[in-house]
Amino acid sequence: MTSDRSEPGLRSETIRRTNLSSIVRQLHAAGPTSRSGLVARTGLTRSAIRGLIGELVTGGLVAEGPALSLGNPGRPSPIVMVRPDGAVVLALDVEVDSLAAALVGLGGRVLEQIRVERPRGHSSVASIVDDLAGLAAIIRARRVPQLEIVGIGVAVAGIVRRSDGLVSMAPNLGWIDQPLGDHLLRVFGDEVPIAIANEADLGALAETRRGVAVGAANVLFVSGEVGVGGGLIVDGRPFSGAAGYGGEIGHLPINPDGGECTCGAFGCWETEVGAMRLLRRAGRSVLGGPAEIQALLRDADDGVASALAALDETGRWLGIGLAGLVNILNPGLVVFGGLFQRILPYVAGIVDAELDRRTLPAPRRLVRVVAGTLGPEAPIVGAAELALEPILADPARWLRGLDNDRSGTAEFAVRRVVA
Amino acid sequence: MTSDRSEPGLRSETIRRTNLSSIVRQLHAAGPTSRSGLVARTGLTRSAIRGLIGELVTGGLVAEGPALSLGNPGRPSPIVMVRPDGAVVLALDVEVDSLAAALVGLGGRVLEQIRVERPRGHSSVASIVDDLAGLAAIIRARRVPQLEIVGIGVAVAGIVRRSDGLVSMAPNLGWIDQPLGDHLLRVFGDEVPIAIANEADLGALAETRRGVAVGAANVLFVSGEVGVGGGLIVDGRPFSGAAGYGGEIGHLPINPDGGECTCGAFGCWETEVGAMRLLRRAGRSVLGGPAEIQALLRDADDGVASALAALDETGRWLGIGLAGLVNILNPGLVVFGGLFQRILPYVAGIVDAELDRRTLPAPRRLVRVVAGTLGPEAPIVGAAELALEPILADPARWLRGLDNDRSGTAEFAVRRVVA
Repeated sequence: MTSDRSEPGLRSETIRRTNLSSIVRQLHAAGPTSRSGLVARTGLTRSAIRGLIGELVTGGLVAEGPALSLGNPGRPSPIVMVRPDGAVVLALDVEVDSLAAALVGLGGRVLEQIRVERPRGHSSVASIVDDLAGLAAIIRARRVPQLEIVGIGVAVAGIVRRSDGLVSMAPNLGWIDQPLGDHLLRVFGDEVPIAIANEADLGALAETRRGVAVGAANVLFVSGEVGVGGGLIVDGRPFSGAAGYGGEIGHLPINPDGGECTCGAFGCWETEVGAMRLLRRAGRSVLGGPAEIQALLRDADDGVASALAALDETGRWLGIGLAGLVNILNPGLVVFGGLFQRILPYVAGIVDAELDRRTLPAPRRLVRVVAGTLGPEAPIVGAAELALEPILADPARWLRGLDNDRSGTAEFAVRRVVA
Repeated sequence: MTSDRSEPGLRSETIRRTNLSSIVRQLHAAGPTSRSGLVARTGLTRSAIRGLIGELVTGGLVAEGPALSLGNPGRPSPIVMVRPDGAVVLALDVEVDSLAAALVGLGGRVLEQIRVERPRGHSSVASIVDDLAGLAAIIRARRVPQLEIVGIGVAVAGIVRRSDGLVSMAPNLGWIDQPLGDHLLRVFGDEVPIAIANEADLGALAETRRGVAVGAANVLFVSGEVGVGGGLIVDGRPFSGAAGYGGEIGHLPINPDGGECTCGAFGCWETEVGAMRLLRRAGRSVLGGPAEIQALLRDADDGVASALAALDETGRWLGIGLAGLVNILNPGLVVFGGLFQRILPYVAGIVDAELDRRTLPAPRRLVRVVAGTLGPEAPIVGAAELALEPILADPARWLRGLDNDRSGTAEFAVRRVVA
């Protein structure tokens, strides 16, 4: 909560590590790049790049391909790329309707993935973590020889304390103050770093690294299902507040006369725009889940008036809340995820109209609203990015053949991402 | 709006500059520090610190005092401090009710200051900038010989585009799309950097650097007068969105049945918590300004029911909006400025009660609401900090006796502050 006000200077021994990190981050984000491209993008000298790449190749994180001229004049330049098997992480995802596990390599390559539906309802943290361990065992067994895991990232549909992975509140899982971090430690041990974060925060990270928002510096990810979550990217970095609790845009008070929310307050944004309210507005069963939503959208396609009216009213409240968020946060890009991604084609006009009416002209002119491209996989893709972060931040510790000290890297944390 | 995705590496020639910056920032923020304190706070070696301080002393930015033991065992360590006259900036402030100018030295020392009341109402940008030039001339003339100005920082009660100082909207000054930056260039020339920002953004910076929020990493500054402005400090850095327009918390839609706002929308937060609504609720003249507010608070002290009821209702809406902001932003500290600072003693209970009802438990437990300590001077203090930022970021360019290249430093910008 407080910064220590110290201003760290640069010791010469940290410079090599910082430069290795610049190169690995570049290759992780942008894919294969020529050596001369790396010179241009990192600002390092050609000889420094050559030496650092040599270290990364020897250490198993990077490979070099043939020299290609790529249509440029001058000497052909070797192509450099990360090795997906150079650092592999386990990504886990705890959603209201499903559980998932994936093995993801450096560069964001999904090596193995499994997702299983689960009945909506409340389960103990212990049983869900046991299920996650089972899924992890299945995908690990698919690879012979087994890949070494260097980190674990976990997305969860709840509010997570950064310091220890305590889930403060996950209404749709029925959890209050549940020590998810402790249970993961029990099952997966403490040999590799475990990082846990809110699914919408990770969805924002995923869309910014691998989806529709690549290259955007200020992104608001708005993800709706039963609840509404938000993820913020500020100047290219995930923002989650003083303790990791930020982005709870579903609990913006928007209607003083509104209904009671699962959080205990009244008139929160998610009481107006969540999946249950949409279904109720259309006269459908609020417990129907994704299939019922699908049926509602088919009705809308067929021009059924009750479905169209329900979407309009949800779109109007979406626009009202979004206008306030755009005024506060001035994002360049708003990315709709989850339910909102699916309904965007039906509500784009009315959302735009509310934004026109209610947003200040300057931020209004700048902002675009788009659908995410990663769909329901956004949180697990973000969980993998989170787990890879220690490797990106200090790849020197993960070079093979060295006696590396990785102590202090195991923590439950949305790590500070220097993207 | 987009990041270029390049990952800059560290060239060896940038390291000296970065380390000089670490030292100057430390001394600017924390005041006189012993050499051994600098070793501890920057992580640099003792001999590196000695060499860098030598450069800063020769260049006129820093002075060394006698060696003191300060009760510690071991060799006494010399005290190092910035020289306020080593770099002096001009800070300007355009408020609805007043104009101000100040000369501020490195370390935040206010060398000269003047503030004049102005009648509430609309004035042209040209005439206000001419008035600012007059105030600047008065305070500069007080110093013989005149101090060299190395930068200009400007706070304005409006929404400012970072790139060129265009004021997109300042309803209480009557400005829409007014080129404040161009007018300042006309009057002050382009020889030193000019940076312009919203007053609440700068109030947040000021309270974090010099006021009640020193040492806090995640701060929400909520400043109310006729309008309501917000400033965010995220992980120690000012946040103002993709183009500098962020923090417009006054335009959070909070009451679908609410009144029309100066922004053209309905039911914005400032329609419920601004000064005019408070006065109207108490049955007082809404055009009375600060004197009328003062009279209302005296009534409240005397137990006048209409005054107490008006404060309660304003406090209730303050709490409702603040609950949403805390859910979204998870600040560790909320700092009330302006009118809200003055009324906090009267509304603290009701604000707390609304926060208890409407904030999610986890961020609620973390947040404290306090009054600012800089009062109406917060924006101009922040403007000085903004103007000093180029010197803090790269002091090497401001060392005397060197042929320094300062090209590229003149811009209208909330510079990226690495606090």
